Amino acid sequence: MSNYCDIKHSPTFVDWSTGFLTGEGIEESVKKLGELQGLFQDDSAWRSMDPGTVVYRVQFWRPVKDGTAGGLFWGATEVRPGRVGDEFFMTHGHFHLNPDRAELYATIRGSGMLLLMTEDGETWAETMWPGSVHYIPGRTGHRVANVGAEPLVFVASWPSDAGHDYERVLTSGFPKRLVLRNGAPCLV
Amino acid sequence: MSNYCDIKHSPTFVDWSTGFLTGEGIEESVKKLGELQGLFQDDSAWRSMDPGTVVYRVQFWRPVKDGTAGGLFWGATEVRPGRVGDEFFMTHGHFHLNPDRAELYATIRGSGMLLLMTEDGETWAETMWPGSVHYIPGRTGHRVANVGAEPLVFVASWPSDAGHDYERVLTSGFPKRLVLRNGAPCLV
Repeated sequence: MSNYCDIKHSPTFVDWSTGFLTGEGIEESVKKLGELQGLFQDDSAWRSMDPGTVVYRVQFWRPVKDGTAGGLFWGATEVRPGRVGDEFFMTHGHFHLNPDRAELYATIRGSGMLLLMTEDGETWAETMWPGSVHYIPGRTGHRVANVGAEPLVFVASWPSDAGHDYERVLTSGFPKRLVLRNGAPCLV
Repeated sequence: MSNYCDIKHSPTFVDWSTGFLTGEGIEESVKKLGELQGLFQDDSAWRSMDPGTVVYRVQFWRPVKDGTAGGLFWGATEVRPGRVGDEFFMTHGHFHLNPDRAELYATIRGSGMLLLMTEDGETWAETMWPGSVHYIPGRTGHRVANVGAEPLVFVASWPSDAGHDYERVLTSGFPKRLVLRNGAPCLV
């Protein structure tokens, strides 16, 4: 049916059971523990772990050029289960360079926390579980931690002119960290 | 866990098996056959059918005010199976008032066609099935038809300052229609 009557296939597919993307033009970025120096508070615990351990991977589809006004991107992120000391495996996190740009997350599988931080440093978290949909307003830094025993997978949509500011998270950091306290995740 | 350690729940949830949204602030719009005069080509077939028949329903979450720059909305649409004459049940379709604004669709269940039309009237369709992800560029009218026997459900994300131009579809129409020909859907 694909070339019949001007009917085409979409180039991109999401597996709703895993969240993984397949198709043309899917880009992928894998982050291993060894690349994440300074992200976790317990540096000696970080040094004692295998630097080849995968912490998270991001797949994304950019149907238009980065920076295009009015366009949208689609992505899927998997955060592996694990901790560095008492701190849960998490993504690096970012603000958007175009500061008012928002982002949407929807959780496919696993159990996690979305950490959010205003420009003034106010920090809170939202629980992520299969089906939870999250709105990340503009001017709000965001990172995701896996607090469960399974991979955490979520899909995301963001404006193609949002851009990513990773430096700001590296230099000023999130003022609160998500750690295991008495068997439960806690922002401290 | 919801009020422990600054941890909150997301207000919105999507059931990945059905695509339906639940939670605070979900809006819903139901379109019945009787409200869709002029949408289908075969007017006498349309008049012979029960005007209370549901053709589609849209659920949406607007976490920010309509018109907000940089924000995003999330929605879920169900198109019921059926035909008016030989033309498949479909959504009204629209352009965006802010013309360069794009939209993303991802199919949860069912079998459908995404009809796309440029401002010059060039028209084509993309097949929708569970997992297909579709990019609708700016300046491109879009409507969805259910070509299967089950409900067609997809989730969508679009900029909160996109706006909807329904008039343009009503007045000039899509130059091609999706009909049943020799047992298969065809753009004619």
